[in-house]
Amino acid sequence: MIDAGRQLERMRADAPLVHCITNYVAMNTAANVLLAAGASPAMVHAPEEAGAFAAAADALTVNIGTLSAPWREAMLLAAAGARGAGRPWVLDPVAVFLSDFRRDACARLIALGPTVIRGNASEILALAGGAGAGRGADAGDPVEAAAGAAVALARDSGAVLAVTGPVDFVTDGRRAARVANGHPLMPRVTALGCALTALLGAFVARAEDPFAAVAAGLACYGLAGERAGEAAAGPGDFAVRFLDALAALDGAAATAGARVTPC
Amino acid sequence: MIDAGRQLERMRADAPLVHCITNYVAMNTAANVLLAAGASPAMVHAPEEAGAFAAAADALTVNIGTLSAPWREAMLLAAAGARGAGRPWVLDPVAVFLSDFRRDACARLIALGPTVIRGNASEILALAGGAGAGRGADAGDPVEAAAGAAVALARDSGAVLAVTGPVDFVTDGRRAARVANGHPLMPRVTALGCALTALLGAFVARAEDPFAAVAAGLACYGLAGERAGEAAAGPGDFAVRFLDALAALDGAAATAGARVTPC
Amino acid sequence: MIDAGRQLERMRADAPLVHCITNYVAMNTAANVLLAAGASPAMVHAPEEAGAFAAAADALTVNIGTLSAPWREAMLLAAAGARGAGRPWVLDPVAVFLSDFRRDACARLIALGPTVIRGNASEILALAGGAGAGRGADAGDPVEAAAGAAVALARDSGAVLAVTGPVDFVTDGRRAARVANGHPLMPRVTALGCALTALLGAFVARAEDPFAAVAAGLACYGLAGERAGEAAAGPGDFAVRFLDALAALDGAAATAGARVTPC
Repeated sequence: MIDAGRQLERMRADAPLVHCITNYVAMNTAANVLLAAGASPAMVHAPEEAGAFAAAADALTVNIGTLSAPWREAMLLAAAGARGAGRPWVLDPVAVFLSDFRRDACARLIALGPTVIRGNASEILALAGGAGAGRGADAGDPVEAAAGAAVALARDSGAVLAVTGPVDFVTDGRRAARVANGHPLMPRVTALGCALTALLGAFVARAEDPFAAVAAGLACYGLAGERAGEAAAGPGDFAVRFLDALAALDGAAATAGARVTPC
Repeated sequence: MIDAGRQLERMRADAPLVHCITNYVAMNTAANVLLAAGASPAMVHAPEEAGAFAAAADALTVNIGTLSAPWREAMLLAAAGARGAGRPWVLDPVAVFLSDFRRDACARLIALGPTVIRGNASEILALAGGAGAGRGADAGDPVEAAAGAAVALARDSGAVLAVTGPVDFVTDGRRAARVANGHPLMPRVTALGCALTALLGAFVARAEDPFAAVAAGLACYGLAGERAGEAAAGPGDFAVRFLDALAALDGAAATAGARVTPC
Repeated sequence: MIDAGRQLERMRADAPLVHCITNYVAMNTAANVLLAAGASPAMVHAPEEAGAFAAAADALTVNIGTLSAPWREAMLLAAAGARGAGRPWVLDPVAVFLSDFRRDACARLIALGPTVIRGNASEILALAGGAGAGRGADAGDPVEAAAGAAVALARDSGAVLAVTGPVDFVTDGRRAARVANGHPLMPRVTALGCALTALLGAFVARAEDPFAAVAAGLACYGLAGERAGEAAAGPGDFAVRFLDALAALDGAAATAGARVTPC
């Protein structure tokens, strides 16, 4: 049984320092999501310091949204630094289906043993070698279509796989669950998926069970979306209310509202 | 007769994928503007993939706000990719009057045949070889002062020229119109001009008549500003309401509210 | 006696053009803070133009939050350009304690004579050669612990030192003051510290007394935070209200509300 509220309270008590290497669109949003949730963000991408900082932080998150060759170098150094120091790290393979440039970067990153891989269905299908129907940064495939690929990739890589969409699917290759929290306005605000990746870094920092931590993080994030959506006047207002709802979410509400179903 | 509402509905029905290479300040805002309006943004700037992605997207927008040599390479590759695939693309020559570095980049980009060039009066005057009174990223010249330069540049380059300010001026070299929608708080929020460039990419994607599409995009954007400004408590609140107003704007309201006057 | 309202009105009357080289997380926020306060931001970082632009703008601000080697080059060129033209410039040594890479960059920047250095206590202690307890981008030391280091660094460098926290400490090496304005939600919104650095650039532009200008800027910023915090529903809502409060703050309210105490 996954207790989202207990995981949230544990994360907040730790207030983990999360090293983020993410895309230009998402940096501000990811930092505000981490602060609202009670964690501490730091964006560091210079090759001169990324490896050592990843080893010193509580978790690393790597997002390839605006990938370039210099940033790829920092991502690889940081992932190696986290791995070497036994720190958990999360990979977000944004639009990996877009180019060999992205596919190659993700292959090299996955070889460095991410603790978690979070993507939409088209991204997970592409990581597993499938074709998929993604376009731009958007999924063209339903979450269910990527469940098998996620289980296989979890077994191969040792990572927890999170396939996100209207109902998320999470698996560590042995166990699996669906998380049904969320709101239709969430994909209407840019970078909320990328910021979720950053938040999952906070949840898996010092976590005993990354599978449970990821499922709890997905539920808490979706719950904040549900609260924000209750009275939002549109996507601009929603984005503001979302941060407020995430900051206001407490353990009891998270436990009561989480819709995590083993499957 | 330009029907802004019909153009808005056509754009929304297409939900075009807009490839944006824009500045660091504007990326998040531009993505949210495109999402609010009903289009799909993707920010891609690596030389390894920018050309192929521009050829695959529905439109490209290039904004030189935080120009650097590596990004200039991506801009040129993307513009060439869009041109080669017959995709429309929009140039935003931010602060081109600031340096030879910017003037040279814009000259090379204009040689790749943009579908639309959008700038403030000082930027358009500078593109046409004039001196102007721009400073920083701000126009120091009234829109009217750049009307002649815009017509000449439209004829030379084949692009639709949009000179934006309190009343916008748009021309394809044969036809011209003024668009009188907007609100005084718009220039008090950073990146709204840059995000307009991104939105014009969505309007000209698959458009039969880029001149009409640009005029309609300018009118819809200004109308969202008018709605947002009705009750805004300040520039922060305005930015939130602006996205909500853009998302809520429908075809009938756009047609009724657009103030587009041929001239 | 420092009159925060007179300084605010002087700055607004000048509407200074502030050249910002800041981190990716803070760019949008810094630009919006400058616009809300009545100044004009411009983000320019290419080595091809950074030096000349810094010499032409009214002030320069340099923030090393997402430092990299190419940006370091631009920062050094811009600082040299500002110095050569007699323009004031502000240094924000974000997380300087994190790596030799940052320590070295700050040493080279300080050799170019910043007008103001603003940081948290752990950053100022690190600049002065101390150990401190900073982690990520956060201070681990109280403001008071860095007061001696700030006075010494002000005397050595000729800069005004601003150590920010719940109560700020500002000194030019001869005079010192505490500024007690602010709100607990301010550190819960990312980039507000970095945006303060940008705003201090506006306050010291064309200022006769940089010490008084910095103290006034700190007070005005904290006052906007106090106003925003009165009714904020959370950190998202606070960020919106903060910009509105900064835009609405007038000279009389700033003079009446500033809590600047010589010490």
